[in-house]
Amino acid sequence: MEVKQNMSRIWKQRTAEAKALAEPLSSTIARLKTSLTESNSQGLLSGCSVLFAARPDQTELLNRTCFGRPIITAEKDKQWFQLSLEEALYLSSILKCMKLVGENKSTKSDEELWCHMMSKYYNFPVMFKAYSHLRMKNWVVKSGSLYGVDFVAYRHHPSLVHAEYAVIVLSDEGESKNGRLNSWSDFHCTLRLCGGVVKTLLLLHVRRMNGDGRICVSSLDDYNVEERIVSRWNPEKSREGPTSTREGSL
Amino acid sequence: MEVKQNMSRIWKQRTAEAKALAEPLSSTIARLKTSLTESNSQGLLSGCSVLFAARPDQTELLNRTCFGRPIITAEKDKQWFQLSLEEALYLSSILKCMKLVGENKSTKSDEELWCHMMSKYYNFPVMFKAYSHLRMKNWVVKSGSLYGVDFVAYRHHPSLVHAEYAVIVLSDEGESKNGRLNSWSDFHCTLRLCGGVVKTLLLLHVRRMNGDGRICVSSLDDYNVEERIVSRWNPEKSREGPTSTREGSL
Repeated sequence: MEVKQNMSRIWKQRTAEAKALAEPLSSTIARLKTSLTESNSQGLLSGCSVLFAARPDQTELLNRTCFGRPIITAEKDKQWFQLSLEEALYLSSILKCMKLVGENKSTKSDEELWCHMMSKYYNFPVMFKAYSHLRMKNWVVKSGSLYGVDFVAYRHHPSLVHAEYAVIVLSDEGESKNGRLNSWSDFHCTLRLCGGVVKTLLLLHVRRMNGDGRICVSSLDDYNVEERIVSRWNPEKSREGPTSTREGSL
Repeated sequence: MEVKQNMSRIWKQRTAEAKALAEPLSSTIARLKTSLTESNSQGLLSGCSVLFAARPDQTELLNRTCFGRPIITAEKDKQWFQLSLEEALYLSSILKCMKLVGENKSTKSDEELWCHMMSKYYNFPVMFKAYSHLRMKNWVVKSGSLYGVDFVAYRHHPSLVHAEYAVIVLSDEGESKNGRLNSWSDFHCTLRLCGGVVKTLLLLHVRRMNGDGRICVSSLDDYNVEERIVSRWNPEKSREGPTSTREGSL
């Protein structure tokens, strides 16, 4: 993924960059993985989300890596987290540090999980591919519903940086087609909004390359993700620098 | 169309409201109509727009009623205007004050005009119905491409007021379907953008009610326009006033 030339404006405070460098996201995620694995963590499938009771140290790690959102309950000794389906499956299938269980506390197989996810959201495989694609590159990925996009991606914790990318996931496959950006007016609208909230529009085109038609977590490798950044072309910024212009005008 | 409760914020300057009241748009359009009729005005079909050479008084009237945009040429005695297809057909077929001619200067019949417009833009009948629907109610209607919508509608001249409505035209008919607002993310995106630029989202749903299948200017009556305003529901503003709330909490 292209790295922006001017990084200074993405940090929220002056000290944010130093803080981020001192605590790379990858190492905090590694600590989260160890902690969740050691405690045999179980996430409880509950409708369109997954509930998880975290120990105090896990609470801090989940907050720092931006998985789920803490929910307020009357229980004093544990903090419950509500994870999105993408977040839960990422912890379970990619990081392999959380088991997901149904209401009868039985562990679900990969195939059962996939079935459950798709029964909630037909476009789940494509969205999960996009989510895990970014997470695996250590981007913090949160819902983009506030901006009318699928995800927003942060370089580090949202308390330190502004979201850099507004992400729309596109797919060619029949039902997974979400119909976004098919008309110019939709395209203009999205681009204008991204400009207004100082985010770059990132299109992730998820395509199924091969595979036996069976959809499961292991078939994720059959999907290919193509990244495209969309931005306005600024003629002023794109022409040759002032030195050569001045030479030319003499 | 619903009139906003709080009108004060739409005016650009303090004196704008008085200026607008002194010069209702309907009377300026009536003067434009008289002037264009008297001079046997001819608009020249040219690709996706119509060119018109205006006399000085007509230049002023076109500018004040926001038809077309003046273009710079080397000719000193006349001011050329570039009209959109909707604007030109409105002047020609609804106000009946301009003839539209082809490159060989021959006047086009209604049917020929319609064919020409549709060859440039398949969705023209639906867009023109929406445009004329608003214009006939004395709204100033301009392109909404800057905001990723079909039109923007102003209560008076854009120099006096901010655009109140961002207009998206929807249609059920096969090819005219522009695929907008079919997904929640597109909907959120549009609504968020409208909020950001202080416009209300106005959906014009254009439906063909009957007719013999022939499409011409007179068949516009067969189309029905349904207006819908979309805005966020604000629980704070929608609940009962502070007096009754206080009573309830005692």
